[in-house]
Amino acid sequence: MRNKDFILKGHICYSENSETLTIMEDSYLVCVDGISKGVFREIPEAYRNLPMKDYSGHLVMPGLTDLHVHAPQYAFRGLGMDWELLEWLNTQTFPEESKYGDEEYARKAYRIFAEDLKRSGTTRAAVFATIHVPGTEILMEELELAGVTAYVGKVNMDRNSPEYLIEETKASAEATRRWLSDLKEKEAAGNGFRHVKPILTPRFIPSCTDELMRLLAEIQKEYHLPVQSHLSENFGEIAWVKELCPEAEFYGDAYDRFGLFGEEAPAIMAHCVHSGEREIQRMKERGVYVAHCPQSNTNLSSGIAPIRRYLNEGIHVGLGSDVAGGHSLSIFRAITDAIQESKLRWRLCDDSLKPLTVEEAFYLGTMGGGSFFGRAGSFLEGYEVDALVLDESRMRHPQELTVRERLERFLYLCGDQDVLHKFAARESIF
Amino acid sequence: MRNKDFILKGHICYSENSETLTIMEDSYLVCVDGISKGVFREIPEAYRNLPMKDYSGHLVMPGLTDLHVHAPQYAFRGLGMDWELLEWLNTQTFPEESKYGDEEYARKAYRIFAEDLKRSGTTRAAVFATIHVPGTEILMEELELAGVTAYVGKVNMDRNSPEYLIEETKASAEATRRWLSDLKEKEAAGNGFRHVKPILTPRFIPSCTDELMRLLAEIQKEYHLPVQSHLSENFGEIAWVKELCPEAEFYGDAYDRFGLFGEEAPAIMAHCVHSGEREIQRMKERGVYVAHCPQSNTNLSSGIAPIRRYLNEGIHVGLGSDVAGGHSLSIFRAITDAIQESKLRWRLCDDSLKPLTVEEAFYLGTMGGGSFFGRAGSFLEGYEVDALVLDESRMRHPQELTVRERLERFLYLCGDQDVLHKFAARESIF
Repeated sequence: MRNKDFILKGHICYSENSETLTIMEDSYLVCVDGISKGVFREIPEAYRNLPMKDYSGHLVMPGLTDLHVHAPQYAFRGLGMDWELLEWLNTQTFPEESKYGDEEYARKAYRIFAEDLKRSGTTRAAVFATIHVPGTEILMEELELAGVTAYVGKVNMDRNSPEYLIEETKASAEATRRWLSDLKEKEAAGNGFRHVKPILTPRFIPSCTDELMRLLAEIQKEYHLPVQSHLSENFGEIAWVKELCPEAEFYGDAYDRFGLFGEEAPAIMAHCVHSGEREIQRMKERGVYVAHCPQSNTNLSSGIAPIRRYLNEGIHVGLGSDVAGGHSLSIFRAITDAIQESKLRWRLCDDSLKPLTVEEAFYLGTMGGGSFFGRAGSFLEGYEVDALVLDESRMRHPQELTVRERLERFLYLCGDQDVLHKFAARESIF
Repeated sequence: MRNKDFILKGHICYSENSETLTIMEDSYLVCVDGISKGVFREIPEAYRNLPMKDYSGHLVMPGLTDLHVHAPQYAFRGLGMDWELLEWLNTQTFPEESKYGDEEYARKAYRIFAEDLKRSGTTRAAVFATIHVPGTEILMEELELAGVTAYVGKVNMDRNSPEYLIEETKASAEATRRWLSDLKEKEAAGNGFRHVKPILTPRFIPSCTDELMRLLAEIQKEYHLPVQSHLSENFGEIAWVKELCPEAEFYGDAYDRFGLFGEEAPAIMAHCVHSGEREIQRMKERGVYVAHCPQSNTNLSSGIAPIRRYLNEGIHVGLGSDVAGGHSLSIFRAITDAIQESKLRWRLCDDSLKPLTVEEAFYLGTMGGGSFFGRAGSFLEGYEVDALVLDESRMRHPQELTVRERLERFLYLCGDQDVLHKFAARESIF
């Protein structure tokens, strides 16, 4: 149902910035052509005729952004959890990803992923597919159907990968061009995707030769594509990159040498758990987006990223589920995981970096990641309206709660299954 | 419904010890008078006439034990999560606990707690009430109604507590005696609890004078009561105990000096995050049960307990939700939290202690904590049968999964709401 002009009534909760969480009780969010006109205690004269969706008593908040998720790994979420990163890639990830060369399997698996994402609180996502072009297009179709605004990447990998899941260097670049020109053609014919766009996706440095990176950089310039990849997740991985790219100053420089680190177009780098000083400064200079994936970093024993430091530096940070390094697709869960892990980091590693607050983690899950998509993840005037109506009525309590308390409890104890209605991509999703 | 003799058919999963998780597919758990006669591939001749509950295709596992939970704190679970332990006690915990002097409020709040526990996977629990005797008895009534086998403690606290939640030393001991004799009288009159028993509960050393501890030790000897308390959770708390009890060799010794550390009767000590060598050796000597509460230890920035070390030492360990230090009542969640936190501890603190495996954490949540209640938490022959029939059908997947994979996924991604049927305390609970 197209539903671009409306007013939402409820307890409206949204971030203004990383520190300020605004809660407007019994208020009105005015949405015109999918864009917020602001939140008001009383409906302004000019909007009195708009249809009203009355969710009085309910919490209403912006949709969540998943800044890093591997769609083909959704099938094995919550399995093989006793492995570390590099072993886990070989035993779990690569064998499953190889199946997505089969279009029938890809359709079946990606439909499950997209339908579950549709029912979740996530409205925007940056998604890894696999090396397979038809499978990647199937994923894009399924996400479009699910009403998720997404960047989707055909993965590139031409070295250090099993023979059943590897590309020749030139063939990898050519396949990427074929995919992109196919999307262009569809668009030109009026059959393009409305909410799903391509993003360059070299898997990570160990999987991509310099020559492939050079070819991808050419493609980036030609198509003006953003890029997503992985950075400084795990000590073994970092040592490996150092060995593979002795000429790079640090891990991130191995992307930056090719202009694939935010110089030409925005870049999302997942993890950044162990980034050193020079890498952090380069991330800042290039406007890199950190996709913080606390659950995955815990499951794979990677460590805890210094998110407080990144916020202090003014680096962009959003949250990622990193399914299936993370087992849960829920960005609500990522919000509380981010707080919890920051507390352990403060206690165990560095007590100069204070734990994240509820306000800050809420920001990361909404506006922090949302800003990669433009003006998204808030209800400030001019923002695209992705909205969730929450229902935490199953949480029983003997005492009165404030709206702020209800929101905090929702984040910790409720989740995707407690989203009553979802508005995204200028439509009512459910 | 009393239901003491039956056979459960399904995929039967249970621990034999901390390392061995047995999975018997399409098998039969034989239960006679509430006690397991074993799990069989075919029904033994002698039991052919027992009624069969056929849950073919479903996972069946032992009920979970929550070895440390504060019932009055359930009301504010998931609230005020940005505090550390000692501040959190003063801003959140003590004000709420003071309300349980009001019997009407206690009934309302404890009913919510007990009903939610009833619907969960937890079948056994060691529970803190408050200082109030009538409120404590109300909690016992509600847990009995909910079919939870529980130890419940009237809390003692006679120092360093707000004036609205403190007892005079002698009055605290007398109230405890009044409570216990009341329970005895009810029992003698045939109105006793069937599954709920008292446990001595000095809150923690900072809240209890030596004189109170001495009086409680007398009560323990007279009534042969087990004891539950807190130990070495937080650095500030440990320093405080050192100051308050200069004559104690270490925190645990402050209990042991009075015989309240497992010498006279079994003792549960919650947390043990920062126990030193001598404390660990004493815990081992005294057979102390560690209630490991990973979620709470994270939320309150306490740290991560060395559970691998405790298992290596042969110390008893179970899991606790520690609501409301922990926000979730789910012991399924505690199982995966325990694994996750052990990975971070391995990465960040001490790589000589390997992370916990799924098998080990499953053991902790079932048999590890269950053994505090006797032969509970397994389906080995002679164990009391608490059983959960699981339903993870909402977890969609494109590929085939083994039973072991289904169980692992359940632990990570399903939970209390996915328990289809529960048998406990020789009854069918739902």
